[in-house]
Amino acid sequence: MAESGETPLRMTLEEVEAFLDREFPQMQHGGKTFSVESLRPNGAIVRMDYHDKHIRPGGTISGPSMMALADYTMYVALLANIGPVALAVTTNLNINFLRKPGQKDLLAECSIIKLGRRLAVGEVAMRSDGSEEMVSHAVLTYSIPDQRPGGE
Amino acid sequence: MAESGETPLRMTLEEVEAFLDREFPQMQHGGKTFSVESLRPNGAIVRMDYHDKHIRPGGTISGPSMMALADYTMYVALLANIGPVALAVTTNLNINFLRKPGQKDLLAECSIIKLGRRLAVGEVAMRSDGSEEMVSHAVLTYSIPDQRPGGE
Amino acid sequence: MAESGETPLRMTLEEVEAFLDREFPQMQHGGKTFSVESLRPNGAIVRMDYHDKHIRPGGTISGPSMMALADYTMYVALLANIGPVALAVTTNLNINFLRKPGQKDLLAECSIIKLGRRLAVGEVAMRSDGSEEMVSHAVLTYSIPDQRPGGE
Amino acid sequence: MAESGETPLRMTLEEVEAFLDREFPQMQHGGKTFSVESLRPNGAIVRMDYHDKHIRPGGTISGPSMMALADYTMYVALLANIGPVALAVTTNLNINFLRKPGQKDLLAECSIIKLGRRLAVGEVAMRSDGSEEMVSHAVLTYSIPDQRPGGE
Repeated sequence: MAESGETPLRMTLEEVEAFLDREFPQMQHGGKTFSVESLRPNGAIVRMDYHDKHIRPGGTISGPSMMALADYTMYVALLANIGPVALAVTTNLNINFLRKPGQKDLLAECSIIKLGRRLAVGEVAMRSDGSEEMVSHAVLTYSIPDQRPGGE
Repeated sequence: MAESGETPLRMTLEEVEAFLDREFPQMQHGGKTFSVESLRPNGAIVRMDYHDKHIRPGGTISGPSMMALADYTMYVALLANIGPVALAVTTNLNINFLRKPGQKDLLAECSIIKLGRRLAVGEVAMRSDGSEEMVSHAVLTYSIPDQRPGGE
Repeated sequence: MAESGETPLRMTLEEVEAFLDREFPQMQHGGKTFSVESLRPNGAIVRMDYHDKHIRPGGTISGPSMMALADYTMYVALLANIGPVALAVTTNLNINFLRKPGQKDLLAECSIIKLGRRLAVGEVAMRSDGSEEMVSHAVLTYSIPDQRPGGE
Repeated sequence: MAESGETPLRMTLEEVEAFLDREFPQMQHGGKTFSVESLRPNGAIVRMDYHDKHIRPGGTISGPSMMALADYTMYVALLANIGPVALAVTTNLNINFLRKPGQKDLLAECSIIKLGRRLAVGEVAMRSDGSEEMVSHAVLTYSIPDQRPGGE
């Protein structure tokens, strides 16, 4: 998880996981199924296990599970990049469902495309483990407390 | 639930609930918390109980629970208006989170604004029980099997 | 244009039109085609003339013209309700195109669904003059300067 | 503009420009300001000149001009990849405005993330000429006539 470049991460992967398990226990309701795969400046990857609670009859992953995954992944990317900001809240989420997901874990990759003083915008691409094609794609806006000098 | 007008409903409230409990059991994972309040031509109201599995520490209702509610409510409205179309799938959802919800049930009201042959678009307003103010607002597109004569 | 209720308008229709003509002359590039029909607390209606510059071959109104109309109508509603805030800027716009518009003027009706200290969210329904059906529907977020006491 | 790979383009850059000038003359109303820079499988880049008709007082590029640019660029990418499909229409556009654009041309890069039989979804990143940072970002859905074997 070594990171280089001019924007060092504010939290390690372990710190992010510990923070989330403490602050968002309901994400793991019925069994822990979300885990942080990696962090990078302005980005993060989160894995969602292929688990009963995310599955519709027929084996497909439910839309709400993918929305939760997108939201969680953006939050992970923000935490790693601006530190444990408990008050960051989602203000907008737009998601397109593109293809039927495989009967596999889903990997979500977030790229923050704007990190301003008050708003952060990111996109999240979701793919079945081992596949190149996107299953779904989300764009999210978070409102963040105005605590940082400069920015925007 | 008597309905008048030129577009009679295709399913009763009881039929919709029975269909959903059978087809989407994972929505009720950990306890049944979604229930259909009412149906009308091009619309539906669904209640989401204020329940542990939807709540974040501090008592607020989680974003993913509201997204699931929006998606479910639109699906309920579609079912009632076009019949048990198991293959209708969400292709796009856009949601704005407007205010902190109360520590109460959430009521979601869907209005279908287009019901075409291939696509249906609806909006969903979510409010805390007993309140006039919107907590969140979503617009959704469903892709529907092309089975109806006319339309679009 | 007399308004009643607890949230009086901050600008009259004439003041809004004069402000816009001065601040956004490019909206009227090639001939003035947007005019404010009415204002109300948390809302506004704007007319877009059926004019060559908005029309595609075949007579349909172009998508970009409808997007411009949605954006303009929300700005009009904000101006009337919070006063001449030149720095209010659109941060997000989501639009669904629902039906082929008639070969007529388009009327856009904005309802502000949140007016916070930093963000305002509104929806805009667009209909052909004389028709009940929506041609298109947009949801917009504006970022507004934090100048008002209270709110949010 | 030679293209390799398994999905050859259906139209050359010159063919795309000629088709657009003929079918969408109103895009060039008041002077031609949009030009296709390059095409690739599942993508395209379009330049919008820094021109009076796109500019707000103060020198910034208007939101509606960026929305038109996003819509046009996705259409260009579709044309090149599926051929001259005059009936393809935008059904949804979601745009985030991220930063104040420079007083320069804007370059829009579209990537098609799904090309199905009935729907195509793409994202468009807009940047000021010579800059790495995104000024705005859009995601669009087009409905396309069902004319191709396979797909989806």
